Amino acid sequence: MNNPFMYDEKPKEECGVFGIWSSGNQSISKMLYYGLIALQHRGQESAGMVMCDRQGPLGNISAHRGMGLVSEVFTDEVLGELHGNIGIGHVRYSTTGESRVENAQPVFLNYLKGTLAFAHNGNIRNAGEIRKELQKKGAIFSGTTDSEVVAYRIAMERMETGSIEEAIINVVEELRGGYALLILSPQKLVGVRDPYGLKPLCLGKKDGAYILSSESSAILSCGGELIRDIEPGEIITITDEGIQSDFSLKKKKHAHCIFEYIYFARLDSVMDGISIYDARIRGGKALAKRYPVEADVVTGVPESGITSAVGYAQEAGIPFQIVFYKNSYVGRTFIKPSQEERMSAVHMKLSVLSDVVKDKRIVLIDDSIVRGTTITNLITMLKKAGAKEVHVRISSPPFLYPCFYGTDVPDNKELIANELTKDQICKKIGADSLEYMYLEDLKEMTGDLPLCRACFDKNYPDESEL
Amino acid sequence: MNNPFMYDEKPKEECGVFGIWSSGNQSISKMLYYGLIALQHRGQESAGMVMCDRQGPLGNISAHRGMGLVSEVFTDEVLGELHGNIGIGHVRYSTTGESRVENAQPVFLNYLKGTLAFAHNGNIRNAGEIRKELQKKGAIFSGTTDSEVVAYRIAMERMETGSIEEAIINVVEELRGGYALLILSPQKLVGVRDPYGLKPLCLGKKDGAYILSSESSAILSCGGELIRDIEPGEIITITDEGIQSDFSLKKKKHAHCIFEYIYFARLDSVMDGISIYDARIRGGKALAKRYPVEADVVTGVPESGITSAVGYAQEAGIPFQIVFYKNSYVGRTFIKPSQEERMSAVHMKLSVLSDVVKDKRIVLIDDSIVRGTTITNLITMLKKAGAKEVHVRISSPPFLYPCFYGTDVPDNKELIANELTKDQICKKIGADSLEYMYLEDLKEMTGDLPLCRACFDKNYPDESEL
Amino acid sequence: MNNPFMYDEKPKEECGVFGIWSSGNQSISKMLYYGLIALQHRGQESAGMVMCDRQGPLGNISAHRGMGLVSEVFTDEVLGELHGNIGIGHVRYSTTGESRVENAQPVFLNYLKGTLAFAHNGNIRNAGEIRKELQKKGAIFSGTTDSEVVAYRIAMERMETGSIEEAIINVVEELRGGYALLILSPQKLVGVRDPYGLKPLCLGKKDGAYILSSESSAILSCGGELIRDIEPGEIITITDEGIQSDFSLKKKKHAHCIFEYIYFARLDSVMDGISIYDARIRGGKALAKRYPVEADVVTGVPESGITSAVGYAQEAGIPFQIVFYKNSYVGRTFIKPSQEERMSAVHMKLSVLSDVVKDKRIVLIDDSIVRGTTITNLITMLKKAGAKEVHVRISSPPFLYPCFYGTDVPDNKELIANELTKDQICKKIGADSLEYMYLEDLKEMTGDLPLCRACFDKNYPDESEL
Amino acid sequence: MNNPFMYDEKPKEECGVFGIWSSGNQSISKMLYYGLIALQHRGQESAGMVMCDRQGPLGNISAHRGMGLVSEVFTDEVLGELHGNIGIGHVRYSTTGESRVENAQPVFLNYLKGTLAFAHNGNIRNAGEIRKELQKKGAIFSGTTDSEVVAYRIAMERMETGSIEEAIINVVEELRGGYALLILSPQKLVGVRDPYGLKPLCLGKKDGAYILSSESSAILSCGGELIRDIEPGEIITITDEGIQSDFSLKKKKHAHCIFEYIYFARLDSVMDGISIYDARIRGGKALAKRYPVEADVVTGVPESGITSAVGYAQEAGIPFQIVFYKNSYVGRTFIKPSQEERMSAVHMKLSVLSDVVKDKRIVLIDDSIVRGTTITNLITMLKKAGAKEVHVRISSPPFLYPCFYGTDVPDNKELIANELTKDQICKKIGADSLEYMYLEDLKEMTGDLPLCRACFDKNYPDESEL
Repeated sequence: MNNPFMYDEKPKEECGVFGIWSSGNQSISKMLYYGLIALQHRGQESAGMVMCDRQGPLGNISAHRGMGLVSEVFTDEVLGELHGNIGIGHVRYSTTGESRVENAQPVFLNYLKGTLAFAHNGNIRNAGEIRKELQKKGAIFSGTTDSEVVAYRIAMERMETGSIEEAIINVVEELRGGYALLILSPQKLVGVRDPYGLKPLCLGKKDGAYILSSESSAILSCGGELIRDIEPGEIITITDEGIQSDFSLKKKKHAHCIFEYIYFARLDSVMDGISIYDARIRGGKALAKRYPVEADVVTGVPESGITSAVGYAQEAGIPFQIVFYKNSYVGRTFIKPSQEERMSAVHMKLSVLSDVVKDKRIVLIDDSIVRGTTITNLITMLKKAGAKEVHVRISSPPFLYPCFYGTDVPDNKELIANELTKDQICKKIGADSLEYMYLEDLKEMTGDLPLCRACFDKNYPDESEL
Repeated sequence: MNNPFMYDEKPKEECGVFGIWSSGNQSISKMLYYGLIALQHRGQESAGMVMCDRQGPLGNISAHRGMGLVSEVFTDEVLGELHGNIGIGHVRYSTTGESRVENAQPVFLNYLKGTLAFAHNGNIRNAGEIRKELQKKGAIFSGTTDSEVVAYRIAMERMETGSIEEAIINVVEELRGGYALLILSPQKLVGVRDPYGLKPLCLGKKDGAYILSSESSAILSCGGELIRDIEPGEIITITDEGIQSDFSLKKKKHAHCIFEYIYFARLDSVMDGISIYDARIRGGKALAKRYPVEADVVTGVPESGITSAVGYAQEAGIPFQIVFYKNSYVGRTFIKPSQEERMSAVHMKLSVLSDVVKDKRIVLIDDSIVRGTTITNLITMLKKAGAKEVHVRISSPPFLYPCFYGTDVPDNKELIANELTKDQICKKIGADSLEYMYLEDLKEMTGDLPLCRACFDKNYPDESEL
Repeated sequence: MNNPFMYDEKPKEECGVFGIWSSGNQSISKMLYYGLIALQHRGQESAGMVMCDRQGPLGNISAHRGMGLVSEVFTDEVLGELHGNIGIGHVRYSTTGESRVENAQPVFLNYLKGTLAFAHNGNIRNAGEIRKELQKKGAIFSGTTDSEVVAYRIAMERMETGSIEEAIINVVEELRGGYALLILSPQKLVGVRDPYGLKPLCLGKKDGAYILSSESSAILSCGGELIRDIEPGEIITITDEGIQSDFSLKKKKHAHCIFEYIYFARLDSVMDGISIYDARIRGGKALAKRYPVEADVVTGVPESGITSAVGYAQEAGIPFQIVFYKNSYVGRTFIKPSQEERMSAVHMKLSVLSDVVKDKRIVLIDDSIVRGTTITNLITMLKKAGAKEVHVRISSPPFLYPCFYGTDVPDNKELIANELTKDQICKKIGADSLEYMYLEDLKEMTGDLPLCRACFDKNYPDESEL
Repeated sequence: MNNPFMYDEKPKEECGVFGIWSSGNQSISKMLYYGLIALQHRGQESAGMVMCDRQGPLGNISAHRGMGLVSEVFTDEVLGELHGNIGIGHVRYSTTGESRVENAQPVFLNYLKGTLAFAHNGNIRNAGEIRKELQKKGAIFSGTTDSEVVAYRIAMERMETGSIEEAIINVVEELRGGYALLILSPQKLVGVRDPYGLKPLCLGKKDGAYILSSESSAILSCGGELIRDIEPGEIITITDEGIQSDFSLKKKKHAHCIFEYIYFARLDSVMDGISIYDARIRGGKALAKRYPVEADVVTGVPESGITSAVGYAQEAGIPFQIVFYKNSYVGRTFIKPSQEERMSAVHMKLSVLSDVVKDKRIVLIDDSIVRGTTITNLITMLKKAGAKEVHVRISSPPFLYPCFYGTDVPDNKELIANELTKDQICKKIGADSLEYMYLEDLKEMTGDLPLCRACFDKNYPDESEL
């Protein structure tokens, strides 16, 4: 989850958003920085902030966007030049391969009503159509991103309606897909969550400031406290007069992305009332109930499989053990070994604690298998260190279908589950047994929460509407 | 002219533009690079290129813009990623103090008709009004530059007319000010010169390519040849079918910026039929005729005063001598001496050849005096080295009035000529005599060429129209 | 252990060494690189390699040293310029505060017999005296490091004896302290371990190459296998004719540094026959036996306290739980919150999984307390998250005395255990109980292995000799 | 002279030295910086400073050395960390191709008497022998530079004599070659100039400080004044008690390097009583007297040929004209055109002022021809611009022999004068006539000053002694 080197084959989240509305006069740039640092796991390609002074003149915006990690893009010097008491920030992982600073968010626009800044997580399925529609009506864009399209549409609407809230309501009714939006209109901070609740968004506060964030942990990390989740379809507006919500988007059907619980979200977040940690523990327990195995040790692939492994161990009554040592100095700049050097990069990053595995039967938990390269290396290492058996348990069902809501699942052809049967995969990775989470057991993780699990069962929540 | 450290008090040109339309299929990125390197003296703040493939799909654009010198912004790697056989480039010096990459040119837009890129040199006096007008009509901008306003206006117009040329004609008729524009519409390269010819633009060719450039020297530097200057008010369009010109903007009154001849343009450029070198030589001669003085040596402040000094020397029959040694390693990163160190930065940069000046009466030529700091330092150095007398001759009249066409003359208060009389300045800088070019002698430099010399005489060419 | 930001108050190891003698002709630079990456936890200040070609001309050395992490100092380009089939490498943590590239190791010398390169881990207590002695005899040094002194002394001796081995024997007999030395003499690789075995050194092989390394895990990480530990007092020489050992330094008394087992060494190393992982598990168990407490959850401070916590949990029959989420993006460039922002940097780095601790009695294990700042923050976080009780168990006795063998323990005044009683510390950090490892229980970790534990009991192994 | 890009085929000076002894207490780091900036033309590969506090403890040294220009190596931050009131600095151009920071000067040593720092310009012909001799006696070096050898030898000698001055006298008597040395012994600054005076060194002062510098212009640039040249064979010592000189090295025969006057030294330096500017003017005049030609314009290749061209013009009565425009933005990072782009890099750097040369007969002066590439390009450009004739005059005789005193003349094979006759060269470069300075006319430049001109006539001053 945390290291781009290790888990380059995992599905990727596109973005994290973080917005602040402060009643004070001090610059919120540092607080936005801490919020984005805390959301960095949701996107490492680019980072950006836009802020302005609610008491200042219209359009007096302060912004910076750049390629790289938050701590690379925002130096002390850069933060010192950004001013304002209301602002939004964004971290991005590109799904399209276009890694250019022009695509970094938030975007901002200048128009009759002043300035509008916009950031989003997720995917607007009909953004291309809206773009074409707008272009037909004469719209002129400065880039090619979906963000600009939606921001543009809101600005257009704003010119014909009495308030930014009204404009946003009118626009989001047109949007299809899964998304969490933050909009900064000179004196207001607005958040929108898609009607299905596919993408997360929550509300927090710290001192005199309100916060909108993709995850609750980011609110806590910078010293604030969680108030509540934004409801699916809720449009929340924070102004001098307080907080107001509109629910015109609201639908009966909800469908929260299961991958937040399996993999994306931070372990210490609570999302739609469910603790991510608890969900993963319960997922591990469900795996153990459904697919028990005689074994001596349960362990997880760091970091993504650790929590489920703890759950599996508890349920199975087999001791959880730390089995892999992780070298935290193997990072992005590390020069990877070539094939001829007969070493795997995984081996430099992770090594096996032989004492723990020698002559033992191991249960190895991971959250997913994409191409299977890493798990194969780890099983080889375990066997070489003396493990008698390695039983792999995956805390999600196999990926079979693409995601249309902003998660970057690899192409069909790269998904091993689309090419081979479970038994073939088991053989190929060198495991003694292999089991995936049973589809219906996902509800063990999240209880009654309505889920989108289309990547497993092809049941897209908005299929009927498109 | 060449060194931002030395001449930071000189008037500043805002921009240089360079465009290429190539009949071949090879990338023109390197050629744009050479062209911009050759125009670097016109702006050192930011540089950019936009190009596309005339045969490719609409809107398939390749672009890069960044802060700094052309050689800093465009590395081998960056150039390798830019592709296309038609493109425009830009170097910029900011007049507004807003040094942000968002303000770098060229700008580009996406709209119904594909992509439009735009770069300009000069100042659109009514850009602010056009912006407001457009915003009232619902226009939404992504930045705050004049370039985006004009590009936007052209794109709007294009949607209502049959061709980009027609759209441009309609838009430029609205523009007030002095400008040279380059527009890249997927398959066409268009250049526009303002009706007064305030800003320069010329046409050249190299092999199968046509070039539009702020200066002829940039065409020659990259191996091409000058065809002709673009006429004031001419709109020139280069397409697969060749070159076509429209003259609907044409006016009777022309007014070429005198400062190109005095200071801005490269010595090896020919502009509107007049060699810059010749003009400066003639300027020096005119100074000598009007303000002769008994002296032993004539010299110029490197580099801006050298050519006029050669002219003065020829007319006066006094030998021209090199009097200052210039340390070319004193550049932008040089740590300037503090006051306490009792040295001037000018002294590190320039030193006097004592043998040449000892016991001599010196004529010292420069092209302008703004705050007077540098010239004071130089006179002190000359006197310390034994010069008996120092007679200063300035190859332009005193600045008295602001420029509205894109030249960054310092504020009135910083202009020494607005604060002190000629005699007071002479005393303050420590000269034995001081003379400025006589206003009417400017025609010695440029013959019959109609000039804008409003910064000297307040006679703005478009005053009646605004 | 791994993160300089988090654990800046922990005792610090000074160095790691890694040497290769290869029978082949291919460059070993990449293998040295991987070895040093695997030892990076032993020093992050500077890194260096010296290598040469055993078949090449004398003194044909290839070297690079620089400030920073191994992956920063050694880029692809740098590695490509380093050649040789025999070499030594070094990672360093400075104890003196002099962070200059001149102090980076290995050092190398040119003299009558060719070239000599030298790297060491540890501290030569009498290096200063040897330096003075040598200077009195006329020695001239290019720097001020102990490494240069010893290398110099060996080179001197080599000029008067028949072989480098003999020279080394003569010199090391003079040395006092704890050290592991690697010496590269054009065709030989020599390793020396101090007579007490204070500092670790072991022998491994990979294909046709022999490896000397501070830790076994580094040998395994780069695909090799451990042969054995170098014995205390052993001088091992690897040449074309194989491996030879001399034991003239050997003493009866051994004293292995206890801190390798408590903290320094990688979890996956085996050192002097003892698995580091096992030792820490046993340490945790000993703590549980000696200082049991009624509790619901056992956890450790990541990463340093995790393994002991697992041991404690096993012994106590209380479940081990992961309680802290670690944000791996909070690294060296992270801008730390100020006091006014009312957040601790620890809070950005680590957060509590509330579900796990709510209403629970927690046993929190760490390996040491120096100033107590971090543990105080963590206890505050646990209590705020709802923990009913927090019982701290430290897997080492309190530091009370300085280390003279190369471990950088903070000054007496900064050691909280020197200022306050155990009960006072417990109160100050906000714990409900606090216990340190009982001194005699250390043998639970390491069995019969003779230890140096002078930092706890002032019993320095070489006291009598100095 | 100034641009590494343009004149990469010119002979290269190895070094410049600059030393300061200040009676005050303030840090001299900034003053050393300005001195080195002023000597940058003498070497651009690396730069370094060593300084210490005369009142401080022995050996308390402050040093920094790095690859690159002075302004790159010494940032504000680095200068702020360097302290002392006595110091030496160095700029280096490598002759050997070994461009490593280990070779940067000054070197410094620690020994019984404290610290010794050393910097030199020139070449110690017998440094290799001294090194071997010292190694036989047991010397141990940390690097491979001549500087370390001499510094080491001085330190050795110092240990056996009563003073550093005495030690230096004893050592320099052994040295063969051409050199200027600066030695910093904690409280003394010593300068040595070789007995022939091959390399320059002079004394200056500023406020309470004494300065030793390779060139007088560097003293003036930082606000000081020249006192006198150091005499050939003089050993000058600056201490609290003032300045003392020893002349034990003195010889009757002097031989000043002619290339300082032709090319190396700054135009504004005065060296051994002769103004560099005057010498070059007289050189141009001598060329005109010896090799007159009917022509319309005299010009020089910037910058190296300009001054001689002014002299030629004065003598010949033909007007001097500026003929080339130099683009000062074509620097080290400029991407050079490939052959296919049918442009020369010279063309981007220099362009011809066509008006000046059209239909004209040109005399083109340069200071040397090495491979002939640049001059060929320039002649082509002149002819293309309409020049009727181009007559080349070179202000030095042809290079034929290697320099053993530290000037980096290209290999014999690369010297066009060793391969072709004058007429063949003339034809190859496309000139209408070609003449080199007549050997005996060199005395026109430097009067009675005894010269080393061995690169022209093979008459090495110290031939008999080696």
